[in-house]
Amino acid sequence: MTLVLHNFFRSSTSTRLRAALNLKGLAYDYVPYVLRRGDTRRPDYLANNPAGLVPTLERDDGVVMTQSLAIIEWLEETHPEPALLPTDADGRARVRSLAYMIACEIHPLNNLRVLGYLAEMLGADETAQKEWFNHWVSTTFDALETTISRDAQTGAYCHGDAPGLADTCLYAQVWNNRRFEIETATWPTIAGIFERLDALPAFRDAAPPNQPDAA
Amino acid sequence: MTLVLHNFFRSSTSTRLRAALNLKGLAYDYVPYVLRRGDTRRPDYLANNPAGLVPTLERDDGVVMTQSLAIIEWLEETHPEPALLPTDADGRARVRSLAYMIACEIHPLNNLRVLGYLAEMLGADETAQKEWFNHWVSTTFDALETTISRDAQTGAYCHGDAPGLADTCLYAQVWNNRRFEIETATWPTIAGIFERLDALPAFRDAAPPNQPDAA
Repeated sequence: MTLVLHNFFRSSTSTRLRAALNLKGLAYDYVPYVLRRGDTRRPDYLANNPAGLVPTLERDDGVVMTQSLAIIEWLEETHPEPALLPTDADGRARVRSLAYMIACEIHPLNNLRVLGYLAEMLGADETAQKEWFNHWVSTTFDALETTISRDAQTGAYCHGDAPGLADTCLYAQVWNNRRFEIETATWPTIAGIFERLDALPAFRDAAPPNQPDAA
Repeated sequence: MTLVLHNFFRSSTSTRLRAALNLKGLAYDYVPYVLRRGDTRRPDYLANNPAGLVPTLERDDGVVMTQSLAIIEWLEETHPEPALLPTDADGRARVRSLAYMIACEIHPLNNLRVLGYLAEMLGADETAQKEWFNHWVSTTFDALETTISRDAQTGAYCHGDAPGLADTCLYAQVWNNRRFEIETATWPTIAGIFERLDALPAFRDAAPPNQPDAA
């Protein structure tokens, strides 16, 4: 199956999905979009993804997929090996919960479009935007650090010693944090997991600076 | 299995989970929290849910679950009937994508704690908060309406003629919108689905005004 990934190097939802595709050993054509230029607001993009968000995954059977976590769950169901979720229901719930802490509590608040709204509509200057970004990262990373540091189910990665769904979100979020110079060392368990992920080619190859459209 | 649901009547993540529990026919003990009073910031609550968010689902085997969508996926895996996700991988991806549009693009931005930050840190008055709330609802509901209205897979509900995961999110979000007097009629497909869901006891019994802690 030929896969076309419509995405942006710095987008953390794109980074998540690239890591998952790499872990599954699936090749894809990389089509970059410049978000600030409004590339994803063009009619041809909106026809496939009415929300105008990245990533979009286009398949050669004509199916167009949106929402990074929905696509990763689909990858898991259609290409089970290597597994990104544990086999037991409790483990799966734990991994999804960790993933959603990042995907539902941090990322949506720190999107480019949200920072744009803060600036344009609420007069937030660069300092205020940085405080906002930091606030939501810290709020959830504090809770995530507590959650994973005290739980024996945490291993080299978020859940045991194989990387999975939660790790794709953690890895992408730490990269995103760097745009605002957030020091991951504040959260030692998260920092350790990130370093180990960053040593894996599947993750390293998904990192923002290693994409064709990186500045 | 005895289930204890720690939640808040008006919380849309709580509403989602109540609807899913009701659809699965699972009874639960209802423990209400007053978010504005800081009930979920108390040490005993944070011990179970370090993020201080609702809902938390406590099981009699000692397992404590967080993140509404992770809990709903667990319900689906452990209590498969009636199904909240289709059986085919493409259908499952579609339903999850619709659910995440709401759960990842609207709800996180319109939380009580986010509105509080806007007021305290960025001086957003009630009008500015309402504009913010409306903006993120409209942005994603416009895209959601386009997505579901043009797709033959949409039926009486978001996917076919049985309610599922995406419907729990849609139903909860429309209730949430009412706090800011957003007229759902702007989005006719969404409005129709909501009305049909609201006629089902599983959803109606999950609605904010029908909870024991409703004002």
